[in-house]
Amino acid sequence: MQPKKNIVHLPVYQPGKPIDEVKRELGLTEVIKLASNENPFGCSPKAKEAIIAAVEQTSIYPDGGAVELTQAVADELGVQTNQIIFGAGSDEVILMIARAFLTPEDETITAFPTFPQYKHNAEVEGAKVIEVPVDANGKHDLQAMLAKVTDKTKIIWICNPNNPTGTVLDEHEITGFLDAVPDSVMVVLDEAYVEYNVTGQFPDSIKLLDKYKNIVVLRTFSKIFGLASLRIGYGVGSAELIRSVNQVREPFNTTTYAQKAALASVRDTGFIEFCREANAKGIQQLTAAFEELGLSYFEAHGNFVMVDVQRPGGAVFQSLLRQGIIIRHDPSWGYPTKIRVTVGSEEQNNKFLAALRHTLGEVTAS
Amino acid sequence: MQPKKNIVHLPVYQPGKPIDEVKRELGLTEVIKLASNENPFGCSPKAKEAIIAAVEQTSIYPDGGAVELTQAVADELGVQTNQIIFGAGSDEVILMIARAFLTPEDETITAFPTFPQYKHNAEVEGAKVIEVPVDANGKHDLQAMLAKVTDKTKIIWICNPNNPTGTVLDEHEITGFLDAVPDSVMVVLDEAYVEYNVTGQFPDSIKLLDKYKNIVVLRTFSKIFGLASLRIGYGVGSAELIRSVNQVREPFNTTTYAQKAALASVRDTGFIEFCREANAKGIQQLTAAFEELGLSYFEAHGNFVMVDVQRPGGAVFQSLLRQGIIIRHDPSWGYPTKIRVTVGSEEQNNKFLAALRHTLGEVTAS
Repeated sequence: MQPKKNIVHLPVYQPGKPIDEVKRELGLTEVIKLASNENPFGCSPKAKEAIIAAVEQTSIYPDGGAVELTQAVADELGVQTNQIIFGAGSDEVILMIARAFLTPEDETITAFPTFPQYKHNAEVEGAKVIEVPVDANGKHDLQAMLAKVTDKTKIIWICNPNNPTGTVLDEHEITGFLDAVPDSVMVVLDEAYVEYNVTGQFPDSIKLLDKYKNIVVLRTFSKIFGLASLRIGYGVGSAELIRSVNQVREPFNTTTYAQKAALASVRDTGFIEFCREANAKGIQQLTAAFEELGLSYFEAHGNFVMVDVQRPGGAVFQSLLRQGIIIRHDPSWGYPTKIRVTVGSEEQNNKFLAALRHTLGEVTAS
Repeated sequence: MQPKKNIVHLPVYQPGKPIDEVKRELGLTEVIKLASNENPFGCSPKAKEAIIAAVEQTSIYPDGGAVELTQAVADELGVQTNQIIFGAGSDEVILMIARAFLTPEDETITAFPTFPQYKHNAEVEGAKVIEVPVDANGKHDLQAMLAKVTDKTKIIWICNPNNPTGTVLDEHEITGFLDAVPDSVMVVLDEAYVEYNVTGQFPDSIKLLDKYKNIVVLRTFSKIFGLASLRIGYGVGSAELIRSVNQVREPFNTTTYAQKAALASVRDTGFIEFCREANAKGIQQLTAAFEELGLSYFEAHGNFVMVDVQRPGGAVFQSLLRQGIIIRHDPSWGYPTKIRVTVGSEEQNNKFLAALRHTLGEVTAS
């Protein structure tokens, strides 16, 4: 009873310690988690109302077609309902795209470092994954990615803004790239953090769908909408392409609660505007402090900042944890002295910065 | 940009009409849905409390390892936590098993008719699906299934009780089958309806895990636990086998709400006992009426009954729908005159039976 050859090397998720356990072990009363790019302001109160209102329907299967939510998002974006597919987070949309399109004969191109689920799902399908390092500014190296395209290339994954670096590709860069990519190659534009953008240069990817039939845009309700616990995201593309992805979708892949909360959230634009503005201020707050501390950072366009702490990231992580602050450092990023910190509320950012100052004194520079 | 060859023939889910729309179109004030084997008694009040208590955590990612729930279910079943994997419904566990194990070189065996997701997921993976018709009593034909085993057979799917026929295989039949199946073949025992069983002959599959390392038992919270809207189910098997399935699992595949509601439900054994007893009475109520009406039915051990209405199933479905009762008839079952009706509350069953009597007069026997 052998599993597929191409999955045996894949890591198994190791569950992290629950926050309560961390508190107990370290004798902390408060722990601030700035590790998973969650919304520090929670979610729309209308989403909470929608969740509570759904309680009496708990025993009933979800609407497998997410009809009402699909219509609302289609109206919002100005696309047809058959151009949208929902998943349990954009994670599941990535899974479905890989499962519908990738075979062991295909190649797929991603940046490095970037969101790890592109590579993971491509490897499950046995496709060859080509990782192209981001440039010195943490941006996708689009020319280098183009140079890797062969007649075996099936999908190119672009994370914009990129997680974990936080950098963006502007409209000009994206359209220049799309013009150069063969029509036969799918380009996935993962825009999980798009709503945080305040640059004015960001591509209007939904409009690009009219011209480029080979793109799929991914969006999520886990970030600015604050519905991470509910797992809901979606993909938008040509009707033909979305139809193929739908062929591998489980009939009831999103929950009733997620659909109802997302529907309420789409309609609450005031909450999103508030979070976008607060996040922009938070980025200024953090980066001003980093400059004062002499720490370099990547231009940040999501709800997180990647900063070079000039000390071993693992030691900095541990030092911050002892002070009740959880941030992210992943050795697999290839940035031994960089950490990624989620933009919190002003108060959380202040606590993080105070802890960081202590850490910079405590951990020896490398 | 071609999808995988083996998925292009797969059907795309066609969203059904929302109940409110059906009501409007047919001028009905009440519609009773006995179509999806949902629990007519809802879910445990403790699950509802757990859902409401989780509202303030909406923006936080779920516990990717479902640590607390896994521990509770492991304790309940008397297995180790690394023998359990949770999915968004047992549907997703089926998907993960197929995705981890099946390749285009493999064969897989299912009954026919049975739960369609085994075949669907095997086809997405390109495996050859061999469907073995159930016997005249609606039971898996285990001898015929065994006869189809070759050195290419990777997985055999046993749905017990079988959906849609409702029949069970007893302990003796299951162990005889497992003794005859080569160790190298995985046997998935899908027990979505196990908690409804009152026969006393049902296999204790969890105990069988000690002897048979090649089995995976599937369970769900969608049926007697009444959490269908939340999508949560699980698989139990050897640690080695579950590890392989975990390698293809998305890091956050189940929602916080599902985990919390399931945890509260596992502990509310009183609710389950009430539902089991009410369901057993409901089966008696329905089958006594079928006998009075001269209609044959399969022995029913889930929360549904498959009955031969001796008239075209599609016409019977439409006639019942006009009276505000939704049941299930699927032409792909190969039973043109059979319908599947979920066991409702006593009152719902009475309304269904009254409508059925009217239908039997309205629709001409075939």
